[in-house]
Amino acid sequence: MGKRSGWGEWCCFPCQLMASGGGQRQIVMGKCSRRGSRRGSGRGGAKVAGMENRQVGQSPALDQDLSFDLRTELPEAQAEQPGKHGRTGVIHTPHGDIQTPAFIPVATKATVKTLTPEQIRQTGAQAILSNAYHLYLQPGQDVVDEAGGVAKFENWHGPTYTDSGGFQVMSLGVGFKKVLAMDTKGWDEKDIRARHKDRYAHVDEDGVDFRSVIDGSRHRFTPEVSMQIQHGLGADIMFAFDELTTLVDTRAYQESSVARTHRWARRCLIEHDRLTRERSHRPRQSLWGVVQGAQYEDLRRQATRGLLDLHQEALDEGRRGFGGFGVGGALEKENLGTIVGWVCDELPREMPRHLLGISEPDDLFTAIEAGADTFDCVAPTRLARRGGVYTLDGRLNLKNARFKRDFSGVDEEFGGYVSENYSRAYLHHLLKAKEFLAGTLCTMHNVEFMVRLVDNIRASIDNGTYAEFKAEFLGRYYT
Amino acid sequence: MGKRSGWGEWCCFPCQLMASGGGQRQIVMGKCSRRGSRRGSGRGGAKVAGMENRQVGQSPALDQDLSFDLRTELPEAQAEQPGKHGRTGVIHTPHGDIQTPAFIPVATKATVKTLTPEQIRQTGAQAILSNAYHLYLQPGQDVVDEAGGVAKFENWHGPTYTDSGGFQVMSLGVGFKKVLAMDTKGWDEKDIRARHKDRYAHVDEDGVDFRSVIDGSRHRFTPEVSMQIQHGLGADIMFAFDELTTLVDTRAYQESSVARTHRWARRCLIEHDRLTRERSHRPRQSLWGVVQGAQYEDLRRQATRGLLDLHQEALDEGRRGFGGFGVGGALEKENLGTIVGWVCDELPREMPRHLLGISEPDDLFTAIEAGADTFDCVAPTRLARRGGVYTLDGRLNLKNARFKRDFSGVDEEFGGYVSENYSRAYLHHLLKAKEFLAGTLCTMHNVEFMVRLVDNIRASIDNGTYAEFKAEFLGRYYT
Repeated sequence: MGKRSGWGEWCCFPCQLMASGGGQRQIVMGKCSRRGSRRGSGRGGAKVAGMENRQVGQSPALDQDLSFDLRTELPEAQAEQPGKHGRTGVIHTPHGDIQTPAFIPVATKATVKTLTPEQIRQTGAQAILSNAYHLYLQPGQDVVDEAGGVAKFENWHGPTYTDSGGFQVMSLGVGFKKVLAMDTKGWDEKDIRARHKDRYAHVDEDGVDFRSVIDGSRHRFTPEVSMQIQHGLGADIMFAFDELTTLVDTRAYQESSVARTHRWARRCLIEHDRLTRERSHRPRQSLWGVVQGAQYEDLRRQATRGLLDLHQEALDEGRRGFGGFGVGGALEKENLGTIVGWVCDELPREMPRHLLGISEPDDLFTAIEAGADTFDCVAPTRLARRGGVYTLDGRLNLKNARFKRDFSGVDEEFGGYVSENYSRAYLHHLLKAKEFLAGTLCTMHNVEFMVRLVDNIRASIDNGTYAEFKAEFLGRYYT
Repeated sequence: MGKRSGWGEWCCFPCQLMASGGGQRQIVMGKCSRRGSRRGSGRGGAKVAGMENRQVGQSPALDQDLSFDLRTELPEAQAEQPGKHGRTGVIHTPHGDIQTPAFIPVATKATVKTLTPEQIRQTGAQAILSNAYHLYLQPGQDVVDEAGGVAKFENWHGPTYTDSGGFQVMSLGVGFKKVLAMDTKGWDEKDIRARHKDRYAHVDEDGVDFRSVIDGSRHRFTPEVSMQIQHGLGADIMFAFDELTTLVDTRAYQESSVARTHRWARRCLIEHDRLTRERSHRPRQSLWGVVQGAQYEDLRRQATRGLLDLHQEALDEGRRGFGGFGVGGALEKENLGTIVGWVCDELPREMPRHLLGISEPDDLFTAIEAGADTFDCVAPTRLARRGGVYTLDGRLNLKNARFKRDFSGVDEEFGGYVSENYSRAYLHHLLKAKEFLAGTLCTMHNVEFMVRLVDNIRASIDNGTYAEFKAEFLGRYYT
């Protein structure tokens, strides 16, 4: 407690380099000889929407498109080796830059649960992600639109994402487990999919009928509706409306679903283009395609190439293309890197990629190595409200009686606002007393932990010390 | 929203004067010709503990006693007119000064519910009050003591109060309504006092047996135990252990109770003196006597004089006396000013007075006029968590559907962090979505409202514009 030294002094490799002039503040350009070329599917000629009129290194104005600058690629990155595409860069949005890789906290209902925007900023978070499904149901995207968009509504002065609602429509509707990186061992169909009579979501070619989790009322999402909602919400980055399948769906269903998600993506692009013209007074939004395809390499690659074709088609027709891509769907933890690797292997290097949902610190390394630039995750916030906190030596649950008289900070070596100002004993007391502040403080700690971990990974990639940093962090965290 | 003008521009009388050099920053000394004399019971010779070795205007060191400097008295203050003793001043504590009158937010379990210490500070609050009863049960005063006292435990860098636990032992035990300023119209005995078999508190000459609200376990508080707990908690200001009676107790019971509270107060002084010597390494704490006596003028005056006798007796015997006084007990709202006035009429002007529990903005004016220097109140925080917010035009409940599309701040004229940064529509959404942040933001607003109201009252007394300010505020708030 009160110790000012943070993690900077601990993670000797990248931080010593940072201290000596390297690191995240100094942009190490051109480290990778492949920079500027296009890799993967051979679509080297694909133009990236909105890149043309922008000066490198500047944030676009509110009426300009999002863009991405690649900075450093992991030296071991090789096209022949799927799952090794880690890189650093900057996403320029109309509301500010995002240094990538970046951890994006989830603000489901236009609030990172328990935190004020100042507290979110204090964790180091650069952007936050809200859910179209939840904000459509309450307060309604029309209210958020009238407020000037989700960022203004929640008083967040920075970039924002919204997801398409597809995930929630399906997962809350069907009722299966809501984590993406899931382990199917020992699962039964009934654990995942509720009986037909309890299903709240029905998919047809045009869209999805579902019932509200709030009041059971009936609603219908189509690709067009999702775009209209997300334009109302007005986030810098939004996602195409996709169908989420489960790991136990048949191969035949996955194929037909990927094909439908492809057709929906085209409709999203068309509606996004129309809305952008119609709402030219609003800050420019960027639509990202979402790659599905479950655990099948051919489906994932085919889906990715399909989205790139749609992107090119849009540009050829004078419409807006995708600004980036998301990797969605049910991913088993053990296959996370492989699947993201297949997708990133197909994607142009010049476009940013978001991984929709991860869970644990080791997933961050896997996702980054596989080529993801940003990722959202409810784990740090959800865990925090139950008293679970990350430390450099692994996870603790502060509700445990052994913390009653532990007057040290949560993790004094890691440092940060919470560890420097409050004892484990105080947090234990707040948790036992069911005080609101317990959630706030544990959330601040966990989000700062994840954000700073990714900051360190970014610095280590830029400084060429990624492998050492990873070995040191994981070796300590998981022992 | 976004408007920077705060209430300062609204409350034209005191603030124009403040802007022209008067006001709370400039100490207007000697306005009252009676300053320095002693009024009331004729005990003009009573020395005030710890006043001797202190330079006026300086905060005492950690090993020095609390003291009080009177600054301005309301011009109409007359000894002959009970209920007109309003004044401004400064309480100097080892952890900082409190400009009086001051609103003291309640931090029952060592947290002002939903707020970080930085957020509490941002409301303008100068000191916070915790409850000995709650902290004794959880986490235990030994844990708080080991942490370095309640302020360090909760990371609050300022003065702290603890109450004696007497109120909670009785109110939570007996189960009657927990507000002090209560209206007994239409009450029945059974509304107030639970059946004997349900009573969790039993009073005898030595102390009180009670059961925990947490787990029903049996405990016993005596004056000595309360002092030991409060020394463990280590607040700057603490209160003598008293018996709280109800408005429906018989006159005979009130008499015997006041007599018992008097005997308990002596035991508190003796134990406090012993503990202070024993714990000389700890910052000096100040014990304040508590005046009971229900709605009876003779009992209230007798109780007050009794405490002053005990104070003098302690000084004569070389022990520590009281540092101030609290007014406790069940007070009907309509008699609040009268009762506090009787007590303050008896008390020496040089000593600070705390009113234990009030509820509404108009009570603040009543309490201050009657001579109270500080007051605590759970209403602003409790109300806030349910969506109730104060405005200059009265109270609103932001859960009301009419706020769904109200994009103005809570009270833009009042201003402050919440009104300047969030819309009523956003707070309405958070409340409907049952988001934690709703409680945080509404609490910040309400506490800031009460703190700033008292700040303005203080400025108006110093500037001689109290009557105008009161008429303007109440005329608007209650119409």
